Amino acid sequence: MKAALLYEGKAKKVYQSSEDEHQLVLSYKNDATAFNGEKKSQFEGKGRLNNEISSLIFQRLHEVGIKTHFIKRLDSTQQIVQKTNIIPLEVVIRNLSTGSITKRLGIKERLAFTPPLLELFYKDDALGDPLINDEHALLLTDITETELAEIKDKAREVNGALQEIFQSIGISLVDFKLEFGRNKEGEILLSDEVSPDTCRLWDIETNEKLDKDVFRQGTGDLITVYQEILNRLEVHV
Amino acid sequence: MKAALLYEGKAKKVYQSSEDEHQLVLSYKNDATAFNGEKKSQFEGKGRLNNEISSLIFQRLHEVGIKTHFIKRLDSTQQIVQKTNIIPLEVVIRNLSTGSITKRLGIKERLAFTPPLLELFYKDDALGDPLINDEHALLLTDITETELAEIKDKAREVNGALQEIFQSIGISLVDFKLEFGRNKEGEILLSDEVSPDTCRLWDIETNEKLDKDVFRQGTGDLITVYQEILNRLEVHV
Ligand SMILES: Nc1ncnc2c1ncn2[C@@H]1O[C@H](COP(=O)(O)OP(=O)(O)O)[C@@H](O)[C@H]1O
Ligand SMILES: Nc1ncnc2c1ncn2[C@@H]1O[C@H](COP(=O)(O)OP(=O)(O)O)[C@@H](O)[C@H]1O
Ligand SMILES: [Mg+2]
Ligand SMILES: [Mg+2]
Repeated sequence: MKAALLYEGKAKKVYQSSEDEHQLVLSYKNDATAFNGEKKSQFEGKGRLNNEISSLIFQRLHEVGIKTHFIKRLDSTQQIVQKTNIIPLEVVIRNLSTGSITKRLGIKERLAFTPPLLELFYKDDALGDPLINDEHALLLTDITETELAEIKDKAREVNGALQEIFQSIGISLVDFKLEFGRNKEGEILLSDEVSPDTCRLWDIETNEKLDKDVFRQGTGDLITVYQEILNRLEVHV
Repeated sequence: MKAALLYEGKAKKVYQSSEDEHQLVLSYKNDATAFNGEKKSQFEGKGRLNNEISSLIFQRLHEVGIKTHFIKRLDSTQQIVQKTNIIPLEVVIRNLSTGSITKRLGIKERLAFTPPLLELFYKDDALGDPLINDEHALLLTDITETELAEIKDKAREVNGALQEIFQSIGISLVDFKLEFGRNKEGEILLSDEVSPDTCRLWDIETNEKLDKDVFRQGTGDLITVYQEILNRLEVHV
């Protein structure tokens, strides 16, 4: 199934598929990183949990008509996806204020953004993934204005779909990060992952954090909360 | 002419006009500050130079049909302006890359932005005037989407006019910061100042910096270069 290792990121290894030159195998690692790689650790089982969670979510997005890179789950830690040319943007949508934005803009915690707030960050570890505006995005990447509008629309659509998924399992989708890429036909597809590494997920009843913030802030056991997300998704989605 | 001191900023004192409740007296100070107030100094004559320069430039903008807060120069360090409700945005236009943007986005120096790059910063000293996107601007201020588009259009129009003015005196307008406010009729007017404190101005022939960067970087005498700008403006504009 796997041929050459093309790239090793912070959370996944990316392999060329041996069967189709336009497909990749994404292999989820047990590594957790935070604060632009400054905090690092390993959690036995994390790779499996994120692969299962992200696979279930991408399947669900497919069912509601959202085009993504996802083809299929390969095994417990790996999935097959369409190879895309990743656009180096982190598209963040915030439904509730928390984290960096509250400090950056002096906004109080738990402010509801209506409409949801969309932010672009330039995906560049060396620069610390800086916040950018639309003009910067057009300058720094090869996307057109129309494609940028399309990416934003898709991100908002994904937000709607994810809010429904998480709502149905008693979770409030606070914010999350998406990446998009172009496939060989030039179509822009949601790529990368959707998991507790890339979403802030708060239990609606208890407000408990069920995402990577338990690792960032050292306030809970990562595996326990990721397993909780998977359990709820397996039962209800 | 002056009644109560309404506000003392880093570069100007703002007085209520005693003659008209909708007018202010802007009194330019000799203070220079940089790096969000961390570097400070006083320069005898700076207030006069910036008042004269900004007055000449606003007159010129008026002549080419751009509406501003400027009413008239009152004396060597003061001018009368329409009182506006300042929108807490710093609107920056960049024609050439230099300074913070090169570090922030890893862009090389002296890259020509075509079209000119527009950036919004949230005017809040305590937060360090953070870069924001359009959605943040709508969230943090009371402007509408239409007004934001109007502000951007006006800023681009001001850029065109300023480029012509400076071109005619042998100076390249590298980048600058504008502020806008609403007057009592709700019209959005260019406010604040346009001076070597708020523009990067490079001599076209020698590349010499004729702006506050000589103070920021400690590479020249502020009064000499500000006087050079005023001399050229007085002869040619
Ligand atoms: N469909 C895809 N095609 C190509 N690259 C992808 C695809 N989906 C995700 N990627 C990329 O895989 C890389 C590995 O993921 P990850 O470990 O999260 O990396 P990073 O440390 O850069 O965030 C990332 O650069 C991501 O953009
Ligand atoms: N026409 C105007 N009406 C009301 N306020 C104005 C007007 N023009 C400029 N100002 C404000 O005058 C204040 C004083 O200027 P400055 O010393 O540059 O202050 P700051 O340190 O806040 O930059 C600023 O807050 C600026 O926004
Ligand atoms: Mg990643
Ligand atoms: Mg000022």
